[in-house]
Amino acid sequence: MAIEQSRREVEQWAQFELTLKGPIEGNPYLDVTLSARFQYKNYTCEPEGFYDGDGTYRVRFMPDRPGIWRYVTLSSHEVLDGLSGEFLCTPPSAGNHGTVRVKDEYLFAYEDGTPYMPFGTTCYHWTHHGSKELEELTLQTLKNSPFNKVRMCLLPTRDMQPPLQVAFAGTCPEDLDKQQFNPAFFAHLEQRIHDLMQLGIEADLVLFHPYDKGYWGVDNMDADTDAFYLRYVIARLASFRNVWWSLCNEYDFNKYKSIPDWDRLLQLTQRYDPYQHLRSIHNGTKMYKSSSLYDFSKPWITHQSIQHWEAELTTSWREAVAKPIVIDEISYEGNSSRRWGNISGEELTHRFWEGLSRGGFVGHGESFINRETRAWISSGGKLYGESTERIAFLRKVMEEGPADWMKTAEEGTYKLLYFGRHQHAFLNLELRQDSSYRIELIDTWQMTITPLPGTFSGSCRVDLPGKPFMALRIQKIG
Amino acid sequence: MAIEQSRREVEQWAQFELTLKGPIEGNPYLDVTLSARFQYKNYTCEPEGFYDGDGTYRVRFMPDRPGIWRYVTLSSHEVLDGLSGEFLCTPPSAGNHGTVRVKDEYLFAYEDGTPYMPFGTTCYHWTHHGSKELEELTLQTLKNSPFNKVRMCLLPTRDMQPPLQVAFAGTCPEDLDKQQFNPAFFAHLEQRIHDLMQLGIEADLVLFHPYDKGYWGVDNMDADTDAFYLRYVIARLASFRNVWWSLCNEYDFNKYKSIPDWDRLLQLTQRYDPYQHLRSIHNGTKMYKSSSLYDFSKPWITHQSIQHWEAELTTSWREAVAKPIVIDEISYEGNSSRRWGNISGEELTHRFWEGLSRGGFVGHGESFINRETRAWISSGGKLYGESTERIAFLRKVMEEGPADWMKTAEEGTYKLLYFGRHQHAFLNLELRQDSSYRIELIDTWQMTITPLPGTFSGSCRVDLPGKPFMALRIQKIG
Repeated sequence: MAIEQSRREVEQWAQFELTLKGPIEGNPYLDVTLSARFQYKNYTCEPEGFYDGDGTYRVRFMPDRPGIWRYVTLSSHEVLDGLSGEFLCTPPSAGNHGTVRVKDEYLFAYEDGTPYMPFGTTCYHWTHHGSKELEELTLQTLKNSPFNKVRMCLLPTRDMQPPLQVAFAGTCPEDLDKQQFNPAFFAHLEQRIHDLMQLGIEADLVLFHPYDKGYWGVDNMDADTDAFYLRYVIARLASFRNVWWSLCNEYDFNKYKSIPDWDRLLQLTQRYDPYQHLRSIHNGTKMYKSSSLYDFSKPWITHQSIQHWEAELTTSWREAVAKPIVIDEISYEGNSSRRWGNISGEELTHRFWEGLSRGGFVGHGESFINRETRAWISSGGKLYGESTERIAFLRKVMEEGPADWMKTAEEGTYKLLYFGRHQHAFLNLELRQDSSYRIELIDTWQMTITPLPGTFSGSCRVDLPGKPFMALRIQKIG
Repeated sequence: MAIEQSRREVEQWAQFELTLKGPIEGNPYLDVTLSARFQYKNYTCEPEGFYDGDGTYRVRFMPDRPGIWRYVTLSSHEVLDGLSGEFLCTPPSAGNHGTVRVKDEYLFAYEDGTPYMPFGTTCYHWTHHGSKELEELTLQTLKNSPFNKVRMCLLPTRDMQPPLQVAFAGTCPEDLDKQQFNPAFFAHLEQRIHDLMQLGIEADLVLFHPYDKGYWGVDNMDADTDAFYLRYVIARLASFRNVWWSLCNEYDFNKYKSIPDWDRLLQLTQRYDPYQHLRSIHNGTKMYKSSSLYDFSKPWITHQSIQHWEAELTTSWREAVAKPIVIDEISYEGNSSRRWGNISGEELTHRFWEGLSRGGFVGHGESFINRETRAWISSGGKLYGESTERIAFLRKVMEEGPADWMKTAEEGTYKLLYFGRHQHAFLNLELRQDSSYRIELIDTWQMTITPLPGTFSGSCRVDLPGKPFMALRIQKIG
């Protein structure tokens, strides 16, 4: 049966949504299967649909090429089965570059080829506090920040007190029904993911975490419930082009699950996500124990999402696994009483430069207490630190340079040298004899770029100001 | 035959010197053996003597208990053999605490029991430049500094141009005779070791190093020549109570020698030194490769003389080997073009606090270039950095505390907590319920100590200024 949908035109990498009415009796979340096969010429894609409460069913689809797409539904229930239709996919509008993918082993690019360098931040529960005002403040802060990725959790923690809108039906631990979902929770979350998309920000969704300690019962679910939750999340959210899957935060702190469990859940995500969004898992391991990190060489992992406080190890992680390095947690700027949340802005800025200059990416976070808004990493709100503007400066420097700055360094055409706490009075450089170079001195803290007089070639000596946190940008000009 | 010596009284741990005239023909350094057996009651000690040129032979001895000591010489040459005499050993004068020894596994104390905490610095070649003025400036600088140990080399480097007084006979690489020594070189060196002793400074003598690269031919000598040199050095210098033996600097950079060679030379030192001065060897290994460090558990090693840039590893080194940790090289404050010589004073101060608070000791060094005097680590002269006065402050804090601050921390009577780059707004402490404590806030950079109001007990919260480089000193008062 051919059906009409009001929205007949959708741009490439935007979301087509098919809304259907169907059975309401029983537990439709469990009882009814639904998907749709979308077809453009000989290319087909079959995303799963989902029950959205009140007898409403939806199938969402993100088309990746312009033209007429036809679809037909498949369902275990006859009123939802065999429904067909079509829509027109138009070319992407300005600012829509598609989904972020891995490129050239260690880098990222949007699907249209535009380079993407993650400058992420973390606001784990910014959508969970039920305050529209705070959420809009967070969005405003993000808009004025250098951050183009946000790590955010779906599931509640022990510290979040009922009544609360959560992913599952119910608002208290006592009445939580993990056989049903909460459409209002997801509708709200989707609005915020969409808001981020409008700001050009990737939503790095943390699907599990170990912070519930059995209170809501969401970190010790059985394998079937985990899978049920995961498929529902994918059916609802995979069609947002700015979504990344972070299977778990600090997975090794969850005592109910083992590495084979995470393998299985990552593989499930790989199987059900039609768009193959970026997939990783994030460790919480003690320092200096790289052997207990998740094995990022596993084929379902797209990039290395690392917690570690030593950006210097980026070099060895690149050697270990040829996938992008994203140090999502490297300690937060702040004054928290916890070790992970009280480094200075100078130190965080330093770790960003150290990681980037070694060919990795670093994530930001802030946890100041006793300020107007609560810790940014958990609630969003305002930023108070000194690192944010320096990260904006670094992002500008990186985006002015080549997309693959490690390769150009090898080729001798562009190189970023960062000296951290070393405070040279001068430096001997070995440049190519047959080329000439322009060199600029970058003060990473003062955020200044000063061209050094003249041009450079071959063995040369560069005078430096004998201060820490300096960098050199060396560019071939002939 | 009984002989008379002009100097008949020597205080405990000072130097008794027996001067004899003997054969001048041939090569007395090689041809003549000489020692003397010193006896006090049933205690005997037999140091080797040495040829001092011009037909003069000497035997030096450091008595370790007061009373009448009798001696008799033993020699391969009849005029030096069987000479006997005695001297009176008097109690040590003020400021003379004897030789430094290892105490309680991880600590040091002078022989009379006075605690000794090494706050060392490095001036590798301060005695080698032939400038009395510069050497006296160095001594003046040391006198006004917190440093109570100096690392200093005996052998020349490639960069030191002839003509030069060196340990061996001759002044140029071409005429160097490694079968004979240079008494003038040693007399000068001994004067400087004595000068350090007068200032209460230990002379951490670096006996070999890898910086000659074959130029003077002193880093690739054969096993016999190495032993010949080593025995001569011990015969001349072991009777200075402030001497430590550092067999080699950056031993792993010397391509002519292997670990078994160093084992042998360390064992030789152990065999010939009658006083068992502290003995170690210092690595030059790349970072993060602790497996290539010298195995400090070997029985002839008294303490761990480490080069590493991460003071945080002190904890693991203590776990690995129960001997004192002395991080003699942790990078130098300065503006050198070399990575090891250009960290900020803030960073070096931080590394000192990090190492000390973890139960190790840290060494200082400075390598500013383009200043009035050349780099301190090689030539001595003046100090320009910002760390020196902070190290003096730290030394004062440490010496005000218990000698074994790691043990008192376990016992809950005295504890030093250092936070480095963490900038807490507050901290939750777990103190003993049945005791009360005084807590002081230490600003390690501003060098202030501020008592926190009131007393503390059990679980308590301490407000902190939210700035990096803070420490807490917690002392039980009841």
